[in-house]
Amino acid sequence: MKLQIAIDMVDTSIAVNMVAEIYDVIDIVEIGTPMIMLEGMKPVNFLREIYPNLTILADTKIIDGGDIEARYAFDAGADLVTVIGIAPDDTIQAVVKTAHEHDGLCVADMLCCTDMINRSIELMKIGVDYICLHTAKDEQNSKKAPLDDLFEVKKRLPEIKTAIAGGVNFKNIHSITKAHPDIVAVGSALTEAENLREAVINMTSIIRGI
Amino acid sequence: MKLQIAIDMVDTSIAVNMVAEIYDVIDIVEIGTPMIMLEGMKPVNFLREIYPNLTILADTKIIDGGDIEARYAFDAGADLVTVIGIAPDDTIQAVVKTAHEHDGLCVADMLCCTDMINRSIELMKIGVDYICLHTAKDEQNSKKAPLDDLFEVKKRLPEIKTAIAGGVNFKNIHSITKAHPDIVAVGSALTEAENLREAVINMTSIIRGI
Repeated sequence: MKLQIAIDMVDTSIAVNMVAEIYDVIDIVEIGTPMIMLEGMKPVNFLREIYPNLTILADTKIIDGGDIEARYAFDAGADLVTVIGIAPDDTIQAVVKTAHEHDGLCVADMLCCTDMINRSIELMKIGVDYICLHTAKDEQNSKKAPLDDLFEVKKRLPEIKTAIAGGVNFKNIHSITKAHPDIVAVGSALTEAENLREAVINMTSIIRGI
Repeated sequence: MKLQIAIDMVDTSIAVNMVAEIYDVIDIVEIGTPMIMLEGMKPVNFLREIYPNLTILADTKIIDGGDIEARYAFDAGADLVTVIGIAPDDTIQAVVKTAHEHDGLCVADMLCCTDMINRSIELMKIGVDYICLHTAKDEQNSKKAPLDDLFEVKKRLPEIKTAIAGGVNFKNIHSITKAHPDIVAVGSALTEAENLREAVINMTSIIRGI
């Protein structure tokens, strides 16, 4: 189980400062969609330049233009990109192909998907590397972390790798680890912690059962 | 009927040069999703700085984080943003609210929507300003412009404003104008024309029936 920190609503300089505190204790740094919308691939470029070995996920949420948008992210130095799971199959295929040509990985974000299992099977056949069960930011007050979906996907498709994202915190992490996702993405519970490094180390200890 | 030029796969300096040729003859300049992914809000900022009266659409394709992502676009100077029509209602509501607070407009991109009429009715109730019938870039070889959907939406919901996008060119524009969308978005048929200004003027003449 890997820990991914979602850095979302800050600019590149703040993101770089945050990563400086944790680059040696974090598994994956996610450059979140809002930051990409504001600054494009600049934060990915900067982090890749400073940390050649850091694993960077660009949360591109591609829904069309699969090849070109994935290419921009991998050319900037991303290791993983996200595609919207319900995007057209042609888009998913293009992102997977471009990702694998760049030795990168493709994460399908299952936001807005209403047929989780069947779509996951299709996505797996197309070649996506991870299925990400994701509670939308805008629904975190009304919906719980999609644990039931995660358990169901793990049970029905034990061969596919999974990620969970959205509203994960120090309270609900213990029930999430029971479902054994491959990646746990955590945002404000880490980025807004008083001591970022300590929070990352504590969260890592929890998900590794140390 | 307004003409929107979609500027997609170039960097800010090329986009600025393109707009310099046409700012006085184009209705709406769209900064496309790939450009946003690469450069963030930089092209929107630059164009707003140079052309205070230009109508700019930022093709943000928001699917979560409605308020913050719309805010970034409007703060940069956009007049219209796009939200994915099948995004959670909370996200649509947040984008509409933020748009209207900024005297801006919200365009719902109907990519991946399988229940066009019912979702359009819901979106209209939430307050989106335009429904955009959109053929994905990645499907333009296999799918036609969504003219049937446009006719159907116009017939069933005559009160909602519509846009059409994806694969519009000088060949199919004549059948599209018959459906009377409020906005026609055209990409490569204009941006790859030998003479950009002439192409924009010609396309405008066609859609206005001059």
